[in-house]
Amino acid sequence: MTIRYLTAGESHGKGLTAILEGIPAGVPITEAEINKELSRRQNTFGRGERQMHIEKDAVQLLSGIRFGQTIGDPITLFVKNKDWENWGKVMSLIEEDFDDKFSQLKARPGHADLAGVIKFARRDIRDILERASARETAARTAVGTVCRKFLSLFDIEIFSWVTEIGGVRATLPRLPIQEIARLAKESPVLCPQPKAAKAMMQKIMAAKKAGDSLGGVYEVVATGLPIGLGSFQQWDLKLDGLIAQALMSIQAHKGVEVGDGFALGRMKGSKANDEIFFKEKGQFFRKTNHAGGLEGGMSNGEPLVVRAVLKPIASLRNPLRSVNIRTKEEVSAEIVRSDIAPVAAAAVVGEAVVAITLAQEFKRKFGGDSLREMKDNFERYQRYVQSY
Amino acid sequence: MTIRYLTAGESHGKGLTAILEGIPAGVPITEAEINKELSRRQNTFGRGERQMHIEKDAVQLLSGIRFGQTIGDPITLFVKNKDWENWGKVMSLIEEDFDDKFSQLKARPGHADLAGVIKFARRDIRDILERASARETAARTAVGTVCRKFLSLFDIEIFSWVTEIGGVRATLPRLPIQEIARLAKESPVLCPQPKAAKAMMQKIMAAKKAGDSLGGVYEVVATGLPIGLGSFQQWDLKLDGLIAQALMSIQAHKGVEVGDGFALGRMKGSKANDEIFFKEKGQFFRKTNHAGGLEGGMSNGEPLVVRAVLKPIASLRNPLRSVNIRTKEEVSAEIVRSDIAPVAAAAVVGEAVVAITLAQEFKRKFGGDSLREMKDNFERYQRYVQSY
Amino acid sequence: MTIRYLTAGESHGKGLTAILEGIPAGVPITEAEINKELSRRQNTFGRGERQMHIEKDAVQLLSGIRFGQTIGDPITLFVKNKDWENWGKVMSLIEEDFDDKFSQLKARPGHADLAGVIKFARRDIRDILERASARETAARTAVGTVCRKFLSLFDIEIFSWVTEIGGVRATLPRLPIQEIARLAKESPVLCPQPKAAKAMMQKIMAAKKAGDSLGGVYEVVATGLPIGLGSFQQWDLKLDGLIAQALMSIQAHKGVEVGDGFALGRMKGSKANDEIFFKEKGQFFRKTNHAGGLEGGMSNGEPLVVRAVLKPIASLRNPLRSVNIRTKEEVSAEIVRSDIAPVAAAAVVGEAVVAITLAQEFKRKFGGDSLREMKDNFERYQRYVQSY
Amino acid sequence: MTIRYLTAGESHGKGLTAILEGIPAGVPITEAEINKELSRRQNTFGRGERQMHIEKDAVQLLSGIRFGQTIGDPITLFVKNKDWENWGKVMSLIEEDFDDKFSQLKARPGHADLAGVIKFARRDIRDILERASARETAARTAVGTVCRKFLSLFDIEIFSWVTEIGGVRATLPRLPIQEIARLAKESPVLCPQPKAAKAMMQKIMAAKKAGDSLGGVYEVVATGLPIGLGSFQQWDLKLDGLIAQALMSIQAHKGVEVGDGFALGRMKGSKANDEIFFKEKGQFFRKTNHAGGLEGGMSNGEPLVVRAVLKPIASLRNPLRSVNIRTKEEVSAEIVRSDIAPVAAAAVVGEAVVAITLAQEFKRKFGGDSLREMKDNFERYQRYVQSY
Repeated sequence: MTIRYLTAGESHGKGLTAILEGIPAGVPITEAEINKELSRRQNTFGRGERQMHIEKDAVQLLSGIRFGQTIGDPITLFVKNKDWENWGKVMSLIEEDFDDKFSQLKARPGHADLAGVIKFARRDIRDILERASARETAARTAVGTVCRKFLSLFDIEIFSWVTEIGGVRATLPRLPIQEIARLAKESPVLCPQPKAAKAMMQKIMAAKKAGDSLGGVYEVVATGLPIGLGSFQQWDLKLDGLIAQALMSIQAHKGVEVGDGFALGRMKGSKANDEIFFKEKGQFFRKTNHAGGLEGGMSNGEPLVVRAVLKPIASLRNPLRSVNIRTKEEVSAEIVRSDIAPVAAAAVVGEAVVAITLAQEFKRKFGGDSLREMKDNFERYQRYVQSY
Repeated sequence: MTIRYLTAGESHGKGLTAILEGIPAGVPITEAEINKELSRRQNTFGRGERQMHIEKDAVQLLSGIRFGQTIGDPITLFVKNKDWENWGKVMSLIEEDFDDKFSQLKARPGHADLAGVIKFARRDIRDILERASARETAARTAVGTVCRKFLSLFDIEIFSWVTEIGGVRATLPRLPIQEIARLAKESPVLCPQPKAAKAMMQKIMAAKKAGDSLGGVYEVVATGLPIGLGSFQQWDLKLDGLIAQALMSIQAHKGVEVGDGFALGRMKGSKANDEIFFKEKGQFFRKTNHAGGLEGGMSNGEPLVVRAVLKPIASLRNPLRSVNIRTKEEVSAEIVRSDIAPVAAAAVVGEAVVAITLAQEFKRKFGGDSLREMKDNFERYQRYVQSY
Repeated sequence: MTIRYLTAGESHGKGLTAILEGIPAGVPITEAEINKELSRRQNTFGRGERQMHIEKDAVQLLSGIRFGQTIGDPITLFVKNKDWENWGKVMSLIEEDFDDKFSQLKARPGHADLAGVIKFARRDIRDILERASARETAARTAVGTVCRKFLSLFDIEIFSWVTEIGGVRATLPRLPIQEIARLAKESPVLCPQPKAAKAMMQKIMAAKKAGDSLGGVYEVVATGLPIGLGSFQQWDLKLDGLIAQALMSIQAHKGVEVGDGFALGRMKGSKANDEIFFKEKGQFFRKTNHAGGLEGGMSNGEPLVVRAVLKPIASLRNPLRSVNIRTKEEVSAEIVRSDIAPVAAAAVVGEAVVAITLAQEFKRKFGGDSLREMKDNFERYQRYVQSY
Repeated sequence: MTIRYLTAGESHGKGLTAILEGIPAGVPITEAEINKELSRRQNTFGRGERQMHIEKDAVQLLSGIRFGQTIGDPITLFVKNKDWENWGKVMSLIEEDFDDKFSQLKARPGHADLAGVIKFARRDIRDILERASARETAARTAVGTVCRKFLSLFDIEIFSWVTEIGGVRATLPRLPIQEIARLAKESPVLCPQPKAAKAMMQKIMAAKKAGDSLGGVYEVVATGLPIGLGSFQQWDLKLDGLIAQALMSIQAHKGVEVGDGFALGRMKGSKANDEIFFKEKGQFFRKTNHAGGLEGGMSNGEPLVVRAVLKPIASLRNPLRSVNIRTKEEVSAEIVRSDIAPVAAAAVVGEAVVAITLAQEFKRKFGGDSLREMKDNFERYQRYVQSY
């Protein structure tokens, strides 16, 4: 079974639901493990008040888990919207509850608002913004946590850190990946370089004061990947393409890089590629990783390194100019409680979607319906790689 | 019918084949139109000798077209490999023709070679490089040309230009998109700024002399898109994600940006988003396009602007260090006739994959089986948008 | 957006969840409408006591609906398992609750039990039967009801009736489809011929007394389909194939027929095909419908007629011989409260899956994101067909 | 990589093309093996003259095979239309060649003709019939032969025989499957019971004389399937549904049965299900196979047994009544050279599509990119099943 998933749910509706299918039977998972990641997504510096105070997301596993482990069934993950009680009328199921005073008419630039109401022929922007909201990433984070737990049983680990916020760039310390990740986790902005982290937080405070917002860049790294996930055989099987799609599909993301990314466009071929060496013990290796662990659309055994950029959120306390979708009058965009610079939160979501994509490709390569069968398949492949 | 396609074929095999399905009946298309794009892909400055002299690709339409137009059937596109006669033995179908002296054993860094032979358990790198080669992009260019012809019937046009090669950056002239495209087409490196174009060509000449290679960046722009292609409803319906996948899946591509891309990470929210205005005649518009025409995973009516980076090709005349896959001895990588800086060629391929993705989303939104039906659906939607 | 859906949930878990995506914005739907179909599925003659007394399914719409209509978002449908309170320990999420005394070890013939525990490497048959149970069809019925409501807005109606139970065959009255459907709805076994209906019920009573079970055949008919749903262009686009898959994928279904089905194998070509005529008013028509409304994998404008057979349920009060999956000793199969002859219930599910498939193909042909846009596209196509 | 494929090509166009992707590297295959199956499809009793004399199909493998085996690349299969030279003008690519005298205006009942021209807005039925023709099954037969060769390396074998033509039913001899298959192959109508075979041929001769056609029923059996192909987890993963789709998608197929099929609707539960037993050596087994090897949507280790019905072909020498699509006058349907009773040919195609479906599910379960890796995965799973 291929791993696939769908999410559903509005930002102020009853909650977010995801159905995740194809995780093999026998993977241990608890609600607490998922809640830990949901909490990481919420409690980073740069998020708005709603995130920090109201939500405190908690997942309910409604299917697919029994006695602490997956049984092969589709897994239902439900994250209740804590705020729902206050929104019952505005988000009511019932036609009778309709009241045009709830309608939001001022389109926010930089959001799905305007294109959305036109595409779906709606007269109330709320019908659009509720689903287009980055609130949806809580569901993807929950799904991603199950996938990452599954991958961790094969010693595949996924990390992330913030490298840039509002123009402040961090220099990554020359340390092992796990060390960098540890430093990042100590920082409220998930930045592993303390000095840069401090400057980033100051930038965020200043932006908040000015009623403005900031974007930034984060990096996701995956270690322990076997050689040969993804394939060059067809355009839609290439792992770099699949990861780019997953990251770019996160709300407000506007760029994705693999390895040295855009910097490679300025390098010479003799410097930009990773020469191949061989260790006594029976393993190919590289001394550099410009390619970010991906060659020919496949994992090459080096750590996967990808980066993504988050644009500054368009919901501002000093709102942008816009138009009323009914009267067509010029207005100030709707003011919505919002984040200032959710780059660290985006990094957590980035980890999740990378985990999902890797789990999908891992399942595709190793097949199997139970953890036991997959481990058998995986371990023998790894021994074969050692002896190639 | 959804538009979908598969390509097949090896670099030195009999040829490349693609099957393209879902183009509505009634779209006029000729082999000559496709050959023109195949020629654009081949005849740009920075390509190697093979491209410039040997190939001269020509498509054969083996199905799906009758009396000059599509009839709704799957379209078969075949591009013969002109060089095939010289490779009959090496690429033979027949077991008896096997000769180990044909086997390529030196893995090239930066290619699918090493991960590929391990993944597919092969003992000859040729079994990998033949399909992993960027030669495959000729098939995608052919498919993309049919898609772009289809889109052009709805006044959707797709352009591209090179903005950077080997560190030389062009400044785009402040001209209408069609003008920039015209300037780019006049340049052997597809760069619309003559001064930069000249510097790029000098860089390429120098790299060639040094046995080295260069990468670069190009931009693809699509005009005339209706509001509302793509969707925010699910992660895999977002148009930005789909385009990122399409571009990143092109050989040697390592980064993708939408609109201002990574630069948005350094901007403030008050400057990074595109305020919304309304014209008398009944149309929403923007004065800026930081978002590159995509908001909330949907086209917003502004030109689509995406950029991609191509790493410098790893096949060098002064080859990199590598390993023999059988003996594990250190060797110099295989020397393969190759391009120096195929950035302009990549831009042509970039146009093609963007055309395919847009055609898919266009079909998804407007349905229909014949051009006539699609035009009806499209035109009424456009009138509705005008009157929204 | 293509219509797609996933269901999840175990028979005695917290409930069944479905996510349905791609229904256009603007379709009116209420929980009550769905509950009516859930109730039809439960309250037919031939079902076991659990169905008749315990469940009384009620759907909760957790997303996608606002003020009484769809807004284009994925719709979450949740059907709580009323019995869940009694199963909390057996179906617990928590590893600590594991107790081997809950484990079911006797494989039931005719079920997923044995193949399932082997495939998923489980040691307790409950890990399999919970999801494999026909309880899952409640979720598909809910999804199907939304799809049928959507289709009804285009005057497409779906009916069903039972034609055979336990060897008793009904002769369909020569009446209009709506009349036959009305008669069927008056019968506890959904059989439109009162005499046959009575005999069927007697058969069911006798089987119940004997601790045995019965199967049967039902027919699903859809009226109002436009010409040209489905396509002959590729094997997986043919509407007959898609409907056959949908019906055969229902639990315990072992055969599917379109139109005259297997009887066509005994007819001559001159009698088995439906001659074409033309009405003054501008419409092609047929006097016969051997083809069941499908020619060349497409709807041809005549009513869609399909039939499916349900084998007799394998869970018997006088259980079959089987094996203990751990000790391998011969045992009697587990006795599970079960239905006697759920043919009428299956017919309701059959209507649902046909509705889903037709909605998918309808959306594929007519595109559109809102009901308004789809109506525009549909109505113009219908006018075109009239004038062809 | 999932196995997927597309076919293309018109009946009188240049040829049929298929691209088949996902077959692992290392599978030996030759054009001769495929031609043998193409020949079986053509040379059965009951086919028309075109098949018997003109075509003599031969495949060309244009990609994916090197030195006698697959290398993991997509495989291109091309079957030239031998008759193409005579059709160059009628099927021309070039607009200039259009001549309305080539246009076919008389719709044939029982074909895609009428629904097709309306759906695709064509004015010439040839634009429809060329692709809708059963000629396309040559491509599926070629694809199926590669899949069956792949499966044979895991000792999975696929057989078929005809059980009914024009009302003449054969009684299957009580012999091992391989024996029945051997008998069937000796019969020109693929019927394993000589007496019935003779009667079938007489029926066909009589129908031919009368300018009429006949349908019939065939059975496909697959042996050696591991337990657990397919899955009950989601409606579209059920193996019975997938096989039903594959068979029903073959031209002129109107019904599909699994195991005892429709007869199960007349049996009691106590007789209709297959009791489970256990052999000393460590294997579960059944003494009956009413279920046709499928329980809970999965293979259960018993032979897979499916049946399909082919309606009598609608192209008759004594043509049916129909309508001219332009003038709307009543006409006799176009007379097209055609088969009388291609039931045996359909059985060969049935084997092919079952092979494709099983190969897809096999790959999904066992993963792997090379034959070596798949064999490792498969064999260990089989040992595990033995020891369950």
